[in-house]
Amino acid sequence: MTERGLLIVLSGPSGVGKGTVRQAIFESDDNDFDYSISMTTRKKRVGERDGIDYFFSTKEEFEALIESGGLLEYAEYVGNYYGTPLGYVEKTLQSGKDVFLEIEVQGALQVREKMPEGIFIFLTPPDLKELKSRIIGRGTDEMAIIEQRMAKAIEEIDLMRYYDYAVENDKVENAVRKIKQIIESEHLKVSRVIQRYKKMIEEL
Amino acid sequence: MTERGLLIVLSGPSGVGKGTVRQAIFESDDNDFDYSISMTTRKKRVGERDGIDYFFSTKEEFEALIESGGLLEYAEYVGNYYGTPLGYVEKTLQSGKDVFLEIEVQGALQVREKMPEGIFIFLTPPDLKELKSRIIGRGTDEMAIIEQRMAKAIEEIDLMRYYDYAVENDKVENAVRKIKQIIESEHLKVSRVIQRYKKMIEEL
Repeated sequence: MTERGLLIVLSGPSGVGKGTVRQAIFESDDNDFDYSISMTTRKKRVGERDGIDYFFSTKEEFEALIESGGLLEYAEYVGNYYGTPLGYVEKTLQSGKDVFLEIEVQGALQVREKMPEGIFIFLTPPDLKELKSRIIGRGTDEMAIIEQRMAKAIEEIDLMRYYDYAVENDKVENAVRKIKQIIESEHLKVSRVIQRYKKMIEEL
Repeated sequence: MTERGLLIVLSGPSGVGKGTVRQAIFESDDNDFDYSISMTTRKKRVGERDGIDYFFSTKEEFEALIESGGLLEYAEYVGNYYGTPLGYVEKTLQSGKDVFLEIEVQGALQVREKMPEGIFIFLTPPDLKELKSRIIGRGTDEMAIIEQRMAKAIEEIDLMRYYDYAVENDKVENAVRKIKQIIESEHLKVSRVIQRYKKMIEEL
């Protein structure tokens, strides 16, 4: 019996270093999951391969997928659609392989609604502790900027509550290690392995 | 602000090697939790120290604690009581330190009722996969023993469903590594850290 794979969603505020952390995880040799391939309506660039870099589709195909609920999440950006095909993710999970998704915060919230059983990891800025002194250091003559920064920080942290885990990106190697630990621990959850044990007993 | 510590409960079928794994965790230098001290009514042996090896108590004191709900779990064994004082565990958790509890399966179920937020880890036998061939290898002339073994295996695995994680004790070092990963991951749970982040933001 193949256990269903885990959907791992890595997200966090823009500029936090999601892409770098994801790349470091994939370049490490002990990972064992598929990186979800996005679908887009933008033109294929030289060297890009359909089904590897992106699934390229027409606007009509993409909108039909939106209509039929065939996307785990999607967004429009500079006139083009970008999204995660549900079918590909579902097929991979059913084969027993984990799927790793690195997306923006808004997309992650869409995924949370469609696949609440996923493992949602929020990458937090490394300099939260320094924020105070940096903000104060700028002086009162930039009050508008101070308020803007504080509001943004509060807004970002507030989104954390939709996630399962918070990992501070103080150093890429630390964040990578913690994310791998989370994934390995999640695989040890009784709810995920008990069927396998029961099966073993039945087959005795 | 001090975050509340985690209560980690390690249990599993008798003979699985709980004590060995617990000892290996405590002898490793990167652990940071208290090992819960049991209370007992049995006589103090030479070399044993009150409050270190055990909390020694009279039968009357112990039964008064049972009555007042002051024990996280307890059992009677060869005419003596053994139990885990709730007060000590609670004080340690409130100080922000994790408490590690290694107990029998029945005791763990009592703890689950009193502190459902604990992290319950079920150590599974390393030879579950070999069980089938071992049982079959014994032949049909020992049918009673075969049935007894199978019933015991089924019963043990069935208790797993009350736990959060299942760790196979194939090698002590593997089990130790996995248990440490689980503890570190649990500390990254958003529900545990979000207050700290909110506090940081408030103090900006």
